[in-house]
Amino acid sequence: MKSLLLSRRDLDFLLYEWLRVDELAQRDRFSEHSRDTYNAVLDLCEQLATRYFATHNQKSDANEPTFDGEKVTVIPEVKEAWDAFAQADLIAMSMDERLGGAQLPAAVAQAAFAWFSAANVSTTGYLMLTMANANLLSRFGTDEQINAFLKPMLAGRFSGTMALSETQAGSSLADITTRAEPQEDGSYRLFGSKMWISGAEHEMTDNIVNLVLAKIPGGPAGTKGISLFIVPKYVLDDDGGVGERNDIVLAGLNHKMGQRGITNTVLGLGEGAYTPGGKAGAVGHLVGEPHRGIAYMFTMMNEARLGVGMGAVSLGYTGYLKSVKYARERPQGRLVSAKDPAAPQIPIIEHADVKRMLLAQKAYVEGGLALLLYCGKLVDLQETAQSDEERDTATLLLDMLTPVGKSWPSQWCLAANDLAIQVHGGYGYTREYDVEQHYRDNRLNPIHEGTHGIQSLDLLGRKVPARGGAGLAALGTAIGGTVADAAALGGEIAGQAAQLDAAWQRLVSVTAEMFAPGDVEAAMANSAVYLEAFGHIVVAWVWLQQALAAHGRTGDFYDGKRQAAQYFFRYELPKTAPQLDLLASLDRTTLDMQDSWF
Amino acid sequence: MKSLLLSRRDLDFLLYEWLRVDELAQRDRFSEHSRDTYNAVLDLCEQLATRYFATHNQKSDANEPTFDGEKVTVIPEVKEAWDAFAQADLIAMSMDERLGGAQLPAAVAQAAFAWFSAANVSTTGYLMLTMANANLLSRFGTDEQINAFLKPMLAGRFSGTMALSETQAGSSLADITTRAEPQEDGSYRLFGSKMWISGAEHEMTDNIVNLVLAKIPGGPAGTKGISLFIVPKYVLDDDGGVGERNDIVLAGLNHKMGQRGITNTVLGLGEGAYTPGGKAGAVGHLVGEPHRGIAYMFTMMNEARLGVGMGAVSLGYTGYLKSVKYARERPQGRLVSAKDPAAPQIPIIEHADVKRMLLAQKAYVEGGLALLLYCGKLVDLQETAQSDEERDTATLLLDMLTPVGKSWPSQWCLAANDLAIQVHGGYGYTREYDVEQHYRDNRLNPIHEGTHGIQSLDLLGRKVPARGGAGLAALGTAIGGTVADAAALGGEIAGQAAQLDAAWQRLVSVTAEMFAPGDVEAAMANSAVYLEAFGHIVVAWVWLQQALAAHGRTGDFYDGKRQAAQYFFRYELPKTAPQLDLLASLDRTTLDMQDSWF
Repeated sequence: MKSLLLSRRDLDFLLYEWLRVDELAQRDRFSEHSRDTYNAVLDLCEQLATRYFATHNQKSDANEPTFDGEKVTVIPEVKEAWDAFAQADLIAMSMDERLGGAQLPAAVAQAAFAWFSAANVSTTGYLMLTMANANLLSRFGTDEQINAFLKPMLAGRFSGTMALSETQAGSSLADITTRAEPQEDGSYRLFGSKMWISGAEHEMTDNIVNLVLAKIPGGPAGTKGISLFIVPKYVLDDDGGVGERNDIVLAGLNHKMGQRGITNTVLGLGEGAYTPGGKAGAVGHLVGEPHRGIAYMFTMMNEARLGVGMGAVSLGYTGYLKSVKYARERPQGRLVSAKDPAAPQIPIIEHADVKRMLLAQKAYVEGGLALLLYCGKLVDLQETAQSDEERDTATLLLDMLTPVGKSWPSQWCLAANDLAIQVHGGYGYTREYDVEQHYRDNRLNPIHEGTHGIQSLDLLGRKVPARGGAGLAALGTAIGGTVADAAALGGEIAGQAAQLDAAWQRLVSVTAEMFAPGDVEAAMANSAVYLEAFGHIVVAWVWLQQALAAHGRTGDFYDGKRQAAQYFFRYELPKTAPQLDLLASLDRTTLDMQDSWF
Repeated sequence: MKSLLLSRRDLDFLLYEWLRVDELAQRDRFSEHSRDTYNAVLDLCEQLATRYFATHNQKSDANEPTFDGEKVTVIPEVKEAWDAFAQADLIAMSMDERLGGAQLPAAVAQAAFAWFSAANVSTTGYLMLTMANANLLSRFGTDEQINAFLKPMLAGRFSGTMALSETQAGSSLADITTRAEPQEDGSYRLFGSKMWISGAEHEMTDNIVNLVLAKIPGGPAGTKGISLFIVPKYVLDDDGGVGERNDIVLAGLNHKMGQRGITNTVLGLGEGAYTPGGKAGAVGHLVGEPHRGIAYMFTMMNEARLGVGMGAVSLGYTGYLKSVKYARERPQGRLVSAKDPAAPQIPIIEHADVKRMLLAQKAYVEGGLALLLYCGKLVDLQETAQSDEERDTATLLLDMLTPVGKSWPSQWCLAANDLAIQVHGGYGYTREYDVEQHYRDNRLNPIHEGTHGIQSLDLLGRKVPARGGAGLAALGTAIGGTVADAAALGGEIAGQAAQLDAAWQRLVSVTAEMFAPGDVEAAMANSAVYLEAFGHIVVAWVWLQQALAAHGRTGDFYDGKRQAAQYFFRYELPKTAPQLDLLASLDRTTLDMQDSWF
């Protein structure tokens, strides 16, 4: 039976027929790998996700973690899933061999991980945060920190969190107030509180390794005075074993619309619940140098942002597959041209409007998946570049595509979930079917790891103007290559190439027009509209690449790719024209709006 | 303190300054009324909604009705709210005086009722269904039926439901199979089952009056063989009192994503749980003539569709007001041009992107409210027309606008709720704030009372071609009048008039192009896109009318109206251009898509 989580056929197409990730095995870092090892990982992940993760997805939604004032209880299936994942050595799947990792390419690891997000995004969250945490420590931690904290995480004995936000500082990290006071032994004591920390309290692992942003008194104001600390739930004893309770404690659980299976916490640090070593404050260990915390966190944050994008894709994808299945099985109504009311009803997949809703989903989720796997390959190229030029190009493209890879699927794969509900009709609105949960779960993605608005400021305010527009130029070169290849083929695909080329040229000239007057407020006023137009053009490019990879091939799968590409070029890309017109006008409607007029 | 449910200032503007509903009091039906009586009703409704409905909105979401196998338990606050509404004689607020009604104009009654939907859409659902049921019986019921069933509903002693759908027949009512067998005494016995029936089981009223669609054996196939029956929960005894239990029983409750406070049921009829009068079957009383059930139901369905639209507006509106309040109170970040990280944070309402999200909401919810009140006035004009021509015009406009009035707010006021969450950031995703519930509650509206797709078929397949395009012509005349008035004023508003005129002319010519080849499948293939373009153009017209009503007036309120109109014309109306291009191309992408390609 075909999986309703993801399409392995599509993954194979994207990874091998389009991105040719098997060729990455020619590079030193991946020399132990081959298409066979990639396939083995993908097979394993599909099996584990199906068996241990999908099976309690509804249950963990209906049974949120509870807090009795002392301990947090999570349904036991979450721990079973955690163990299955950890025992398969998947936590370290893309880590260095020196740490016991499998050194999988990021493109493959992302595809592998997507099975779990599609099956159960909440349970997968515990793992994703642990892997992100471990990844950061592997780069910036000391050998001692690696042995004490990272290795137990890779073994699944410890779990990890990322503790950045505070009640008064969500999007604005410059305003955090948690402070870290240096101690004579080189450690720190932390005081403050953290908000929105996922996975930060449970009994599934022996310890929880919190990576906490805090300010060392006397440092610079704003983000330049922020440092990064390891603050474990239990202080390690002299042998590295789990010692006494640290003073980082749960102040309360947040109750969310979706992603209910993972604890989301308010944490208090150094508030006196415990006094490790007989002293006040939560024991923390500085990671790297003082005041460099934001820089460290941002390396990781880019990966986390792509991870959020892939999570959004996964939820969109499984909703799409479930709605296709439903549409095939549900009889309702007759064709517009059929007049006999006594004729049997037809499956709704035969109605044009249902096909439209399924095609839109297909275009969004397969487009999003392709975008994220392409970003994964850029991570691999960056890491294993054969030349400075190759690295530079990969870095420029990745910088440009990261805000899109985070925000585009968060918007459009959520739209896919909305359509999946609509295809299901009234049934889709009930909790007896999965799609309403996917929609609720997916609604988090435009918010966390930098909202839609924050991504748009990153793209337009930082990435576009950086290095004199080098990122836009690099992307233009890449798009131009695809356009030339497609134009040479003639027919429908050449028309798509021309359409993409025109949209891209318009985007580039509008971008210049926006900055020309030198009014930064006006240029940035519609950054979110810019992000949306930019994203749709990028995904049109990704669809053109898929159409190219499918060109000349016959069969249902390739026909479907061509039709979805056609859908994207006819229904979606044209939406950018009025957006670009608006941007070119440097419209001041929002800037001129006054608080008192609302 | 200003209400966070709706804006009374806006209602006053729309009802009096724009629609001039006080002038309706010159007509016989409304001669007892005046602006004073309208204001008294609006004041009362705001007070009752605030005191009895809003106060348990979160509680009824968190405590769904439960079924112990025999009885359904609903939290007691729902009954208190029901009683407060009924005791204020509001159930009959727009009914005829002969029935004890207040004969309020529909425009005013809709505004009055919107307070309750904004406060608690689930609890309001029990009332809305009862009022719709009563309205139908008042038109087609016999005197006996009116005395036995309608009057107790108006007094709040009985409640009502509308039982149309079945498991295999949701959008396709032609396929219902519930049958009604005639009895010698003139009554019927019903056998079958019904699905998605809201409000059909609870203990809040002495009886529940279900209006049930069923087929009398031997009738025509399809919708032409459907009749309408009163099937009460308890059969009436000879004195009209509540008698023995009828055989219409709860088979189960549906559990929904939102609108959780109102029971949504699966009902069994004539399955043998009870045998009223010692015989099998649920006792039913025919309403009107046999086989005319769909026609009766459709009179009511048009009002129900506008009611759904107003429900969507109400949820969008309260979410908008709450997000404005939050944006004023929440400090976060600094302006794009501010460089000092030690400067205090600013309220997020000062950020351009937040203003964009608030302006979009304002444009959607105030546009939706204006559209629905305009439709309400058309109902009033239709009912009290001074000439055949006036009645005909009102009917044509109402026919054209009903699918828009149902679907446009269901789409865009849901989008407003999405933006309200986004303005709240992470807090908006938690159940501690209201906006996530509004979003969940509102997601039902594009589904029930005819899905988005069904509305689009109604508009493009039925309303547009009817009477040789008379509806489109009537709407064109009305729009042309507004355009002329606005064009005469010059300036920004004249530019908006020209923009609307161009969009409307393009819509009219595209409509002709779509039908010209005579290929109904191709013409209808993108009916949903047509509905969306049509809806945006209609709402642009509604915004131009508001801008006209605000013209020359000074003050924050009017400046806000002008700015929201400007937003709609600059950000929203241009979205229709690529939609109309797609429609004009008679694109076959969805028609050509094959099941096996998914």
